[in-house]
Amino acid sequence: MTEKPLSGMDPEEFRKLGKEVVDWIADYLKNAEKYPVFSQVKPGDIKKQLPIAPPTSPERTENILADFNRIILPGITHWNHPGFLAYFANSASAPGILAEMLATALNVNGMLWRTSPSATELEEVVTDWYRQMLGLPVEFQGVIIDTASVSTLVALTAAREAVHKQVREQGLSGRTDLPRLRLYCTEHTHSSIEKAAIVLGIGQEGVRKILSDAEYRMKPELLSAAIEEDRKNGWLPFATVATVGTTSSTSIDPVPAIADICQKEKIWLHVDGAYGGAAAIIPEMRYVLNGCDRADSFVTNPHKWLFAPMDCSVLFTRHVGILKQAFSLVPEYLRTTDGTVNNYMDWGVQLGRRFRSLKLWFIIRSFGVEGLTSLLREHCRLAREFASWVDADKNFERIAPVPFSVVCFRYHPNEISDETKLEKFNAQIIERINATGELFLSHTKLNGRYTIRIAIGNIATTEKHIKRLWELLKAEADKLE
Amino acid sequence: MTEKPLSGMDPEEFRKLGKEVVDWIADYLKNAEKYPVFSQVKPGDIKKQLPIAPPTSPERTENILADFNRIILPGITHWNHPGFLAYFANSASAPGILAEMLATALNVNGMLWRTSPSATELEEVVTDWYRQMLGLPVEFQGVIIDTASVSTLVALTAAREAVHKQVREQGLSGRTDLPRLRLYCTEHTHSSIEKAAIVLGIGQEGVRKILSDAEYRMKPELLSAAIEEDRKNGWLPFATVATVGTTSSTSIDPVPAIADICQKEKIWLHVDGAYGGAAAIIPEMRYVLNGCDRADSFVTNPHKWLFAPMDCSVLFTRHVGILKQAFSLVPEYLRTTDGTVNNYMDWGVQLGRRFRSLKLWFIIRSFGVEGLTSLLREHCRLAREFASWVDADKNFERIAPVPFSVVCFRYHPNEISDETKLEKFNAQIIERINATGELFLSHTKLNGRYTIRIAIGNIATTEKHIKRLWELLKAEADKLE
Repeated sequence: MTEKPLSGMDPEEFRKLGKEVVDWIADYLKNAEKYPVFSQVKPGDIKKQLPIAPPTSPERTENILADFNRIILPGITHWNHPGFLAYFANSASAPGILAEMLATALNVNGMLWRTSPSATELEEVVTDWYRQMLGLPVEFQGVIIDTASVSTLVALTAAREAVHKQVREQGLSGRTDLPRLRLYCTEHTHSSIEKAAIVLGIGQEGVRKILSDAEYRMKPELLSAAIEEDRKNGWLPFATVATVGTTSSTSIDPVPAIADICQKEKIWLHVDGAYGGAAAIIPEMRYVLNGCDRADSFVTNPHKWLFAPMDCSVLFTRHVGILKQAFSLVPEYLRTTDGTVNNYMDWGVQLGRRFRSLKLWFIIRSFGVEGLTSLLREHCRLAREFASWVDADKNFERIAPVPFSVVCFRYHPNEISDETKLEKFNAQIIERINATGELFLSHTKLNGRYTIRIAIGNIATTEKHIKRLWELLKAEADKLE
Repeated sequence: MTEKPLSGMDPEEFRKLGKEVVDWIADYLKNAEKYPVFSQVKPGDIKKQLPIAPPTSPERTENILADFNRIILPGITHWNHPGFLAYFANSASAPGILAEMLATALNVNGMLWRTSPSATELEEVVTDWYRQMLGLPVEFQGVIIDTASVSTLVALTAAREAVHKQVREQGLSGRTDLPRLRLYCTEHTHSSIEKAAIVLGIGQEGVRKILSDAEYRMKPELLSAAIEEDRKNGWLPFATVATVGTTSSTSIDPVPAIADICQKEKIWLHVDGAYGGAAAIIPEMRYVLNGCDRADSFVTNPHKWLFAPMDCSVLFTRHVGILKQAFSLVPEYLRTTDGTVNNYMDWGVQLGRRFRSLKLWFIIRSFGVEGLTSLLREHCRLAREFASWVDADKNFERIAPVPFSVVCFRYHPNEISDETKLEKFNAQIIERINATGELFLSHTKLNGRYTIRIAIGNIATTEKHIKRLWELLKAEADKLE
């Protein structure tokens, strides 16, 4: 054993090392671009540098930090880099990082009101601030969950509880009194909905994918027809998931028409606005949430496009009672005499709950609603500008409208019509640009067409980056053979 | 708008404020005891100090930090305080905080290998380090999940998949070919198991609670009998959840005998060692995991008793293939050509995955296995010492054995035998001690008896704190009328 204190680190040592880490982070926020955004290591490269057994004796923290720089960093794909344009780009903003530092040190578990009244009450306040920013109705109450995958699972558990009496008590299996459950979405709905259906015992066959129109939006008339057909065939329709900003193309399902159908059919409407929802804070884009005021539940992730460090997903619902009916379980050791306080553990799956409202509070106050609005507006402007370059170039083709900050396009000169060849070329372009380390792109497929997809969402991404992308795209396209 | 940069904060401003926050945290780690451990505010006290609408313009971060101190802190119940003895006491240790600072700034989403090879490969390495520390067999592979609630849900989804063919595809509802599913645990098993059963569509009736012995441990002969009876009555037994360190009393279910039964009956054995599992790193306590080498899945939470900041739960399983069979869903936009790499998104519910392995790496290296062992051994010693004081005092009664660092006891002088009166007195003692702000206790009920329960698990808790607790307990008991 060395002379380390039993507590692992003296507070004064933490003070010194913590400030070195802050210096590292400040430099990183300033110069993330000095790192290749997409890690260039090969499988196993990191692992082979790490001991296969844990150290018996304490090690100096300086050595761990040195290994972080030497071993870990080369294997990082830099999500917090302005050249990150893949998936949904996100950001750990400086105010968000400060809040996380404090939340980590306090290490609050906000399961019960009494286990930190501030955690519960701040969560009530900031989710309501966010509700107002999004223009959602006052009946919507919010809870912060780790990810949209779990938020959706929670919402659909409530939807199942609402339609199927006694599922909580009796379950689903082996019951002859229950018809099979069906939920509706499209092929563009996020995979987490299908995953939730698997977990909930609805099964993949219980997820019916409604055809989309040419712009990847659910066709509401087909939803109506599907529900009618399913009822005839003995299914019990119980939920529809509409999306505001689908993952592939950021299309917006026609929520008002879908809400009409759900209301008429008395089925739960869950809206997935994990990425796109945030755009509704921009006054001139408020329309993206048209109809969402009539949803039963709505999820949007501040860790996607509101500059909150991972993880932070807000689930809104007008049916807190049903959530609690599905989830509340209070063993003796968690029973309190606090009266009618809000114990967020009753709202979902997880008992352990980090103090996530703190970062949302820091971010909304630090940027102000106007500051956040300006950033999102600028991301959308950059996307439209990039799309205009694509549209003006005969060798490139846009594959989807650009309602938010994502552009779907491909290299497609007139002389090539073979889809296999186009896929190969576009995959090559992505691979080569990713190999530069300057920018990181990902792909999707839309109507069978291999598509390059850029998502502008990192807080430090500017016009410079999309200009550079356009240069590289044209240069790599020219080199194709 | 003020002159704030669009990015919310200039890196140099972050450098300055970040260091102030580090100073705050260092002081906090040194002097957490200057705060009342149990928040003394009343419901609504925090909320009424917060504006009901979000700020339009950016605010100075200094003001937010000042409000954190002025408004938020009084409403914090200090989990990271050495006087925290409620629930399962935990710790955000200094090395863990440093790691979280870096992980937050990098903001990695470790969903795919390529979205940060270091996140995936470090997770493989540190979960294997931990497996070795616990003495679990090499077939066990680990994944870091946020909470034991979700880890258990994942494990039981896999168990359901293993027994019921085509549940993933066809679901459970409306199928006449499926018998009802049953899983087995005891009344002392954590509520998250019942919650998982609700979500999975097994229902509360699908959870059969096997009677425990006088020391709160499952009676294996009753488990056998229950399975046999259920099979006769048309149920399909599919899983047993055994616990190493139950929440109320930290009892240890007889895992070797339960494993025999599960093996014979071909049903999934999940072991919940969320708290107690960590103790197996102490060589002389390795026995607490006897039989767990034969489990199908095993969960233990480094954020409980291994000094990791929330959240960090490790799920081990020998059946990664079944987990993937249950959960893997790869939409086009997440498809890669990386070959046979490990994409952790396939192992569970969540797509978004924080870089949680970093804190486990910092902690294991910074303390060393010996350092962690010494801390846990000391916590157990303190608990035994406290228990010896209880045992020696005729006015107090111990209610459960002390296999780990939790002591269950109550005030129970000879002259009082009325349970209602005992409950009232013991509840009063807890309330009065909690009101001092020096120490924070919680309660449970064991065989109908209201029980004071202390959990020694915070890294800074020492003999001084339990001596003070004993003083206060006796003083408060003397004041009862």
